[in-house]
Amino acid sequence: MASLLRTFLAGGKRIRPLLCVIGWHAAASQANTAQITRLAASLELFHAFALIHDDVMDASDTRRGRPTIHKALTSDYHRTRTGCEDHIAQRFGTGGAILLGDLALTWSDELLHATTLPEPQRSTVLRIVDSMRTEVMIGQYLDLRATGNEHTTVDDTLTVIRYKTAKYTVERPLQLGAALAGANPQLLEACSAFGIPLGEAFQLRDDLLGVFGDPTQTGKSCLDDLREGKSTTLLALALATADPAQAARLHTLVGDPHLQQEDAEEIRHILTATGARATVEQMIAHRHRQALDALDTAPFTPAATHALTHLAGQAVRRTS
Amino acid sequence: MASLLRTFLAGGKRIRPLLCVIGWHAAASQANTAQITRLAASLELFHAFALIHDDVMDASDTRRGRPTIHKALTSDYHRTRTGCEDHIAQRFGTGGAILLGDLALTWSDELLHATTLPEPQRSTVLRIVDSMRTEVMIGQYLDLRATGNEHTTVDDTLTVIRYKTAKYTVERPLQLGAALAGANPQLLEACSAFGIPLGEAFQLRDDLLGVFGDPTQTGKSCLDDLREGKSTTLLALALATADPAQAARLHTLVGDPHLQQEDAEEIRHILTATGARATVEQMIAHRHRQALDALDTAPFTPAATHALTHLAGQAVRRTS
Repeated sequence: MASLLRTFLAGGKRIRPLLCVIGWHAAASQANTAQITRLAASLELFHAFALIHDDVMDASDTRRGRPTIHKALTSDYHRTRTGCEDHIAQRFGTGGAILLGDLALTWSDELLHATTLPEPQRSTVLRIVDSMRTEVMIGQYLDLRATGNEHTTVDDTLTVIRYKTAKYTVERPLQLGAALAGANPQLLEACSAFGIPLGEAFQLRDDLLGVFGDPTQTGKSCLDDLREGKSTTLLALALATADPAQAARLHTLVGDPHLQQEDAEEIRHILTATGARATVEQMIAHRHRQALDALDTAPFTPAATHALTHLAGQAVRRTS
Repeated sequence: MASLLRTFLAGGKRIRPLLCVIGWHAAASQANTAQITRLAASLELFHAFALIHDDVMDASDTRRGRPTIHKALTSDYHRTRTGCEDHIAQRFGTGGAILLGDLALTWSDELLHATTLPEPQRSTVLRIVDSMRTEVMIGQYLDLRATGNEHTTVDDTLTVIRYKTAKYTVERPLQLGAALAGANPQLLEACSAFGIPLGEAFQLRDDLLGVFGDPTQTGKSCLDDLREGKSTTLLALALATADPAQAARLHTLVGDPHLQQEDAEEIRHILTATGARATVEQMIAHRHRQALDALDTAPFTPAATHALTHLAGQAVRRTS
């Protein structure tokens, strides 16, 4: 179990730990690095938990270029017990993955508990951690409920993005590092003012790349999101402005597990013709601008402001 | 989601919170009850998490006399979306239950974080919580791996019992209450000396009741454990002493999802004839004696010793 988790963790991009450390620098911490390292590692273990459970819920086959944990455990079970029935091996794989996710969450907590802090830093850090966890779980639940639901509105998708990505991936990690450094409420608010629009822009770019991206650069197929029927702002916008014929085609094609390249091409055509693609690009640019404006007035150290400006540009302009 | 959890929590027996409070009394706490109440409630929320995930892993239909969380969510989804396919509703039910379990664990943590403690109580409490969580998850994993495995030994089953029940249900809750009251290492060791044998006896009695109990008293069928192929000490003992014909029958019948009352009667006959049933009764009596001996020398308050003596008798002699 532990070696599976070690391999899984090796594949991560470490975006949340990076933002946590930048938040710590932003608040001009004078302390040594032992505590921030534990807090940042705790975020990465929490993320491992979230992904492992997410893959079970979505029944995904691959993650970070390797079989997902439940797939790997199912294969292991088959390998060690010849002739065992499929549903028994799958039960072991799913159960084992749920438990390994639970363990990753527990070990994330253990790292947090090992971070000895004076008050009021301790209370502030724990309050932010607790909020972050509940937010991402509620975001996941709203996303689960929206998948395959034709009545999902643009606002619904933006709520999911805010909780599942913007707060979880950008705002909260930045705030956690800053809170560890003893940041005042004004600095914590600046983390939100920068983090939420940037996190939303990051996810909107992700949604565009999932459908219009170059698979040789993104490393993932342009069919997966469409076959899964992933509920995105892009799709909700298209459905809101589509004519009846376009809407009917989208309802038929999106979510079809056997969707082919030519179907994806037809969907891309509708997403462009309805103006949804251009609107999402405008939404990204608008949020990028909001994030940069927030940086202008944020009480961050110059080095942190520089790093966040660079990171914001990368996040919204990326092609992979 | 939150109302589902509230209903779920209403059905619990509160054994872990009760032991936590007795442990607190055992160490003669002079503090007010606000902290022990939070800690005890945190244990009950953690237990809700463990049960909700356990039910997903076992694909159980009922818990505490009601549909399990994943079953309830699946039905809700069907009710609100007419004509939706079964596998989509089930995916929502399973995903929602995993998330609600995750939320219960997060909220258990939140209660723990709200328990402000001076050092060294804080470090000791958190260390015990962290150990307890990892222990129960490892116990669950070993149990999952043992289910349906014909090569499980008596020692394997005792290891599962120790981690999944004895430490999790008795030893750790007692220790947590005591640690909150500032117990010294000697008192914490006395919690283990009493809690582990009693917890093992409790589970061994549970295994006997699962097969030989009176359904009108236990409130559950005598077929469930046998149909599931639950890996118990009772069964491992029987397989270790069975003659080839008896062993063959056990292998055929135990784990058969369509097992009937007459098959269960045949299994009960073999479990008795091999001496496994009598051996388990002896093991329970031996552990009950060990627990009472530990109480004789434990540095607990007289009121706590009295309560634990009474509780131990109930746990090993119960018929439901």
